[in-house]
This record gives sequence, C-alpha cells and structure tokens, in this order.
Amino acid sequence: MKARVYVTLKEEVLDPQGDAVRRSLGSLGFEGVDRVRVGKLVELELGAVDRSAAETELQAMCEKLLANPVIEDFRFELEG
Amino acid sequence: MKARVYVTLKEEVLDPQGDAVRRSLGSLGFEGVDRVRVGKLVELELGAVDRSAAETELQAMCEKLLANPVIEDFRFELEG
Repeated sequence: MKARVYVTLKEEVLDPQGDAVRRSLGSLGFEGVDRVRVGKLVELELGAVDRSAAETELQAMCEKLLANPVIEDFRFELEG
Repeated sequence: MKARVYVTLKEEVLDPQGDAVRRSLGSLGFEGVDRVRVGKLVELELGAVDRSAAETELQAMCEKLLANPVIEDFRFELEG
C-alpha cells in the first residue's frame, strides 16, 4: 500500500528556507509571490494490507520520526 | 491564489535520505516498509488571480528554481 506524508512547519514557526525561495523567485522576475513555505513530502510503500492498520502505523511513524510535532504539522493519505 | 508544488526525485535516482528513513523506521519497530522516498512540498501564495496565468507562472518557477529537472519531477495544484 502506497502512502504519502506531508510535513509542514506550523503557521507560527519562521521559515527562512521559504523566505529565501521567495526572494529568489522575486529576483528571477516572478512578482507578486506573497508567501512561500517549504515542507517535506515522504512517499512510503507499506507492507500492510489493512487500511486502518496502515493509518495507525503511519500516525505513529509521523509522531516518532517523520515529523517534529513541536514545530511541524503532518497529514497523510493512503492510495489504493 | 494558493499553490502547492510537489517535487520528487525521478524513479531512477537513488535516494539516500529515503533509505536512511526506511532503516530508522525499521529500527523503531516498523516492519514491512519496502521503500521510502523523500521529496519537497512548496506552498506558495500567488498574487495572480487568473488561473491559467498562475499555471504558466508555476510551470516556469518549477523549471527555473523549485525543481532540478535533471533529477527531479514536479507537479503542482492550485487552490480556489
């Protein structure tokens, strides 16, 4: 079963990488980009066949390793 | 207009970061994770109001800055 995990910085956390991307876009001539936030996308191939077992496992993976819950939010989706 | 850009390594490109995550998941007791690939998620707030103009702009942003077309694929979606 294929899963996608999206990890993003919490709203109140500063994102210097995003700011750097925004400035670079500006200097390349892309005007009017108000805000850029950079996060992570983790694609996993899971052995689990049961959807709810996979969801429980993914939740634990995110809390323990894939995201830092102090500064990051996460969400995930399962395919198939 | 809000946009999300997903940047992933091409299939044929090795992903040592993804492999490290897979091994770490294994040592945390998550069995049966066959494959992990780590990509980027870039969230942008665009000034453009016209959808097709925004799409053209995003395509150019990805090709010029957000993705490395030699080793990465990208796709994006617009919200609202």
